[in-house]
Amino acid sequence: MGLLVVGSLGLDTVSTPFDKVENALGGSAVYISLAASYFSGPTHIVGVVGDDFPKKYLDLLESRNIDLEGLQIVPNGKTFRWSGKYHYDLNVRDTLLTELNVFETFNPVIPDKLRKSRFVCLGNIDPTLQLRVLDQMEHPHFVVCDTMNYWIEGKKEELLSLLKRVNVLIINDSEARLLAKEPNLVKSAKIIREMGPEILIIKKGEHGALLFTEDIIFSAPAYPMEMIYDPTGAGDSFAGGFIGYLHKTQDLSPENMKCAVVYGSAMASFCVEKFSTKGLEEVEHLRVHDRFREFLNLSRFNEAE
Amino acid sequence: MGLLVVGSLGLDTVSTPFDKVENALGGSAVYISLAASYFSGPTHIVGVVGDDFPKKYLDLLESRNIDLEGLQIVPNGKTFRWSGKYHYDLNVRDTLLTELNVFETFNPVIPDKLRKSRFVCLGNIDPTLQLRVLDQMEHPHFVVCDTMNYWIEGKKEELLSLLKRVNVLIINDSEARLLAKEPNLVKSAKIIREMGPEILIIKKGEHGALLFTEDIIFSAPAYPMEMIYDPTGAGDSFAGGFIGYLHKTQDLSPENMKCAVVYGSAMASFCVEKFSTKGLEEVEHLRVHDRFREFLNLSRFNEAE
Repeated sequence: MGLLVVGSLGLDTVSTPFDKVENALGGSAVYISLAASYFSGPTHIVGVVGDDFPKKYLDLLESRNIDLEGLQIVPNGKTFRWSGKYHYDLNVRDTLLTELNVFETFNPVIPDKLRKSRFVCLGNIDPTLQLRVLDQMEHPHFVVCDTMNYWIEGKKEELLSLLKRVNVLIINDSEARLLAKEPNLVKSAKIIREMGPEILIIKKGEHGALLFTEDIIFSAPAYPMEMIYDPTGAGDSFAGGFIGYLHKTQDLSPENMKCAVVYGSAMASFCVEKFSTKGLEEVEHLRVHDRFREFLNLSRFNEAE
Repeated sequence: MGLLVVGSLGLDTVSTPFDKVENALGGSAVYISLAASYFSGPTHIVGVVGDDFPKKYLDLLESRNIDLEGLQIVPNGKTFRWSGKYHYDLNVRDTLLTELNVFETFNPVIPDKLRKSRFVCLGNIDPTLQLRVLDQMEHPHFVVCDTMNYWIEGKKEELLSLLKRVNVLIINDSEARLLAKEPNLVKSAKIIREMGPEILIIKKGEHGALLFTEDIIFSAPAYPMEMIYDPTGAGDSFAGGFIGYLHKTQDLSPENMKCAVVYGSAMASFCVEKFSTKGLEEVEHLRVHDRFREFLNLSRFNEAE
């Protein structure tokens, strides 16, 4: 069985101090499946677009062995649009526009053939929709989900129901603090894991990522980037690399989970090197492997005397 | 030869959300030499206090094999005092009071027998004084220095002269950005290394530390602390652990430098577990070694398939 990815597909208008793109390919399901596509195939997207969604973007996804049978294309519908502006230090961004459009009435329907998917990645969308996806699945083996402060604040109850049914939650440090109502990250992790997910990953942007399981804490370094062109999609690319590698290896041991976190970090580092999804489109398999080794070199030290 | 440490000795009044201490032992030279004392001896402090400095603090330092021959005790002088208040998230602190007192007219004099010291740690004091120390040294082999935003902004020229004469600069991320005038840390590191120090360490608090040399970048994780009682002195403890380990091993290879960064991080983690210097006073040698191993486990991952 392939990997099932549910999330948004959108048209992003993004400006950074370096450049600007309009109506570029974006959305959580897009970044997740592109990043995952380097590891295993096929990846099946469930999502929605309007019929204004450019055919070239659909072609691009299909060329990466991403199956679009679960993609709803709404006649006369308008695709989800997001616009953001990043500031000089790139850690601060202003959302200029969010047009839900066809997403407003989206009801995810999992095609029959995908209901037995064992690996499921729920991109950052309304937890009500994420729950509706899980309701249609038959015994998923490994469910990864993402969320954001907007849902933590606005749909807490639905989110808490969801967390009881997922294996992995991937969020960033400020979201973890908000969800746990606790400033200390290590304490936050304990609190959040008690909400349901046996595995928690806290992304810390330029500071790397932390993996918390029952038995281990693993600290993955960040790739030392001299230039970040466009941070959009980094978190989704992380999730895609993480689940893509696990889906490929079918090995959920803690040791392999650490490698998956590093592959997630690697895909995020490719993502931010170019605008929109460009950084993910042009990666050679060998470069993914090389970057993994760079992470090894970056964090490896030996037993002291 | 022993390790020479120059810096402040003070009486700190610190409050955190958990507790408060008044006139506790503090100062950069104190934290550095206590942390270094776990690795090698003797450590020689050059600094100044007033005759109000409690004898019990002098006794404590001497009990840790810290030599006070270079300590000036000013008759009728008043010791340097600092007072700070940490907020709930402990990353934010307000300085409530800084009384330089005897530090205002401090002129560091290196005793003859210490002028040939090969390992020198310049704690965070006025760069003019740090320069005056180096002027008295005869061919020091390895000079580590610390500084802060106050000197980067107010004594830039003196600091730049100093940086040409040190081997290692240890600063935190916001200081690095300020010194390099560059928001990206990797670029900042390049700019700062061009100012003089061949080795730069950027401390990132709860996110670990980065080591930059000509050939490598090394990312050390932070110890996952559930409880930080008092962050005061963490940076100095890091510097003390770092130089103490290098002084003990006399091995300045990149691989050993990485271990030194981890030992620095270990000493910083002990420091913040208790108020004032208490966390450093009560550490067993075995616990230092154990914590080093915990850092190994925290960041180690294997070659992927």
